[in-house]
Amino acid sequence: MAGTIVMKFGGTSVADAERIKRAAARIVAQREQGNAVVAVLSARGKTTDELIGMAEEVSVNPDPREMDMLLSTGERISCALCAMAIHDLGHRAISLTGSQAGIVTDESHTKALILDVRADRIRSALEGDHIVLVAGFQGVSSTGRDVTTLGRGGSDTSAVAVAAALGADVCEIYTDVPGVFTADPRIVPEARKLDRVSFEEMLEMAASGAGVLQLRSVEYARNHGVRIHCRSSFGSEPGTFVVPEGETMEQPLITAVTHSTAEARVTLIGVPDTPGAAARIFDALAGANVNVDMIVQNEPTTAGGRAEISFTVPREDLRVARAALEPLKGESYADLHKHEEMGKVSIVGAGMRSHPGVAAKVFRVLAHEGVNIEMISTSPIKISCVIDPDRVGEAVQALHSAFELDGEGTILEEESTRATRAEP
Amino acid sequence: MAGTIVMKFGGTSVADAERIKRAAARIVAQREQGNAVVAVLSARGKTTDELIGMAEEVSVNPDPREMDMLLSTGERISCALCAMAIHDLGHRAISLTGSQAGIVTDESHTKALILDVRADRIRSALEGDHIVLVAGFQGVSSTGRDVTTLGRGGSDTSAVAVAAALGADVCEIYTDVPGVFTADPRIVPEARKLDRVSFEEMLEMAASGAGVLQLRSVEYARNHGVRIHCRSSFGSEPGTFVVPEGETMEQPLITAVTHSTAEARVTLIGVPDTPGAAARIFDALAGANVNVDMIVQNEPTTAGGRAEISFTVPREDLRVARAALEPLKGESYADLHKHEEMGKVSIVGAGMRSHPGVAAKVFRVLAHEGVNIEMISTSPIKISCVIDPDRVGEAVQALHSAFELDGEGTILEEESTRATRAEP
Repeated sequence: MAGTIVMKFGGTSVADAERIKRAAARIVAQREQGNAVVAVLSARGKTTDELIGMAEEVSVNPDPREMDMLLSTGERISCALCAMAIHDLGHRAISLTGSQAGIVTDESHTKALILDVRADRIRSALEGDHIVLVAGFQGVSSTGRDVTTLGRGGSDTSAVAVAAALGADVCEIYTDVPGVFTADPRIVPEARKLDRVSFEEMLEMAASGAGVLQLRSVEYARNHGVRIHCRSSFGSEPGTFVVPEGETMEQPLITAVTHSTAEARVTLIGVPDTPGAAARIFDALAGANVNVDMIVQNEPTTAGGRAEISFTVPREDLRVARAALEPLKGESYADLHKHEEMGKVSIVGAGMRSHPGVAAKVFRVLAHEGVNIEMISTSPIKISCVIDPDRVGEAVQALHSAFELDGEGTILEEESTRATRAEP
Repeated sequence: MAGTIVMKFGGTSVADAERIKRAAARIVAQREQGNAVVAVLSARGKTTDELIGMAEEVSVNPDPREMDMLLSTGERISCALCAMAIHDLGHRAISLTGSQAGIVTDESHTKALILDVRADRIRSALEGDHIVLVAGFQGVSSTGRDVTTLGRGGSDTSAVAVAAALGADVCEIYTDVPGVFTADPRIVPEARKLDRVSFEEMLEMAASGAGVLQLRSVEYARNHGVRIHCRSSFGSEPGTFVVPEGETMEQPLITAVTHSTAEARVTLIGVPDTPGAAARIFDALAGANVNVDMIVQNEPTTAGGRAEISFTVPREDLRVARAALEPLKGESYADLHKHEEMGKVSIVGAGMRSHPGVAAKVFRVLAHEGVNIEMISTSPIKISCVIDPDRVGEAVQALHSAFELDGEGTILEEESTRATRAEP
């Protein structure tokens, strides 16, 4: 046995009979190389959206437990069909539900967290010379024995978790793009595909708009040391490996430019300048599962000692965020303003840790383009700027060019770089 | 708590959002009468056919285990959606898969037999004031922990089995017809709905063409003493109760005329007149799960001692029957003839046990209509005749009229009767 490989196919890769057969052929090809193979599949194409539509037809506020029972059927259909197709190619295959695969979660229906993967049944099926198909995006709750789902994009996390439990050599994530790029090629035609990117960079990229991998799956992979290989389901050339930082071939200053045009900004006015005010606000948002990105607090300027807090959230979370904050109005803030149309551009690179000049260069480049920066947030390996969404394309192009991500050039007159960007 | 009621809704009763809401309202109405309520649901409308279509697109010969994984999703979708609709009506509800409901089967994928119903989880949900939705047609295999399905129409059997395990007061089977009739009202407009019919009669009727209940579910109900109430999902009037023979209000001579136009006849020529020849033939058919109905063997007339055996099967089983018999050709028979278009008309009635004159009257009526009888089979409470499928309508009408099933008249100049017939 050459090794153990986990392969994950997304919804577009199993959308119809032809694609399922193609995925089956790729899975069989890995098996015929001598590998033990587990494939984690998503629901076919628009299946999940259709199921959600059905739920909305029968209920104004579908029960989360029943939603999970409903949604989990999509991945089971993909897996059963793919197992049939593999049988026709002359190999043994068995499909397992999340529960049968031993993916144990907490009780948080529709957004469950994986607690454990008890992979005994997967292992014994592999030992019995089977290719194992595992339904992604789902598990079984540890105490309730109920079907749970991991939330949107959870199939990536399923795949990484199974790879970790099996000690797999690699977790291959198949999508409709060839890998991770230095920028979105639809915006920057010269963007390059990256051979390798570190977990830390990939985390920042996923958090700042790169859609190729789910943030959670990258976190899980980093915490459990699972090597990810992002590659295309439509070709056989290698894609991008996501690996520990020490394994990246070089330390580029900047790896990629990422962007998002799906941000919204909320500003709370008249926040009392007392201990605990901000905590109450962000506790309420966390309780509603709102993903807060940047936070900026202005110093109180008036005698009354009241501050202003602004933060950004994904636009799709805006309604939930407002509902979560409504009960705090009066006590924790006086008024709420929202701005629904915000863009964000970010540069990510492990090499910038020791180069404070990068932020200044970003601001210079944007200023030269006449792009106004409304908010800024930084991490040791990322700089994000909130800008007008209509200027995002120009900002990405200018930064990609200024940091010479399209070639092997140098930046800040210091070192050669290679860079990265994930396509949404 | 007034009692425990199991309600079963078929595919047409949950085919779309409106119908699911209507089923939910009926379920809630039973709950609000003070009953503990379990509802067993089928897959929506054409879902099962669509899933089979998907399987046939990806595989020429879909694996039975994977077929069960695939098909079992349909009923889960129905149950989750119905639970959501019940929540919206202000009641607690929980959907359970066949596995969660404790429906334990053998390992015969696509045609599993129920071995046991371990209804602990259903019971504790009922005690917790929940309405319980159970996915019909499916279970979990006792040793393999795999999803199994019970075969077409298996949801009736699921409902009866759950009712038996709970000691329910009644198992209500909701369909798109108001109950069991003395004949198919599309053929005999004067056909009457029956108030009651005995298990034994219902078994014969189900076996001879009445589609309103699955044969297996009636057998299970008889063996476990489960009262069945067949009624319409579109009205609230009572339907037909299927009850032990002693409970039928009167002992009609004839209860109903049933028919089928979906029969095929197989004739095996040159069967050696030796012990075991017939056994080998019918063992092979049973092994292929072919439902053999009538069997006629001609005496060997030639010196060589070779007989002719004819039997009827549902037309849809003909291909499988031929495949099962192919290996026996030469040894157990010389040649096989088939006749794909056969009809069958039957009269059923517990009262005929002590009236041998019934058969003679049937033959007279058919002869008077000029209908040729090709095969005959009888049981103590049934007489079936295989006839030209084009003459089935006339034969049903003539028998219904001759036995005065449309009124309260007498037959054989002896007793008053009431009679029955199920609509397909």
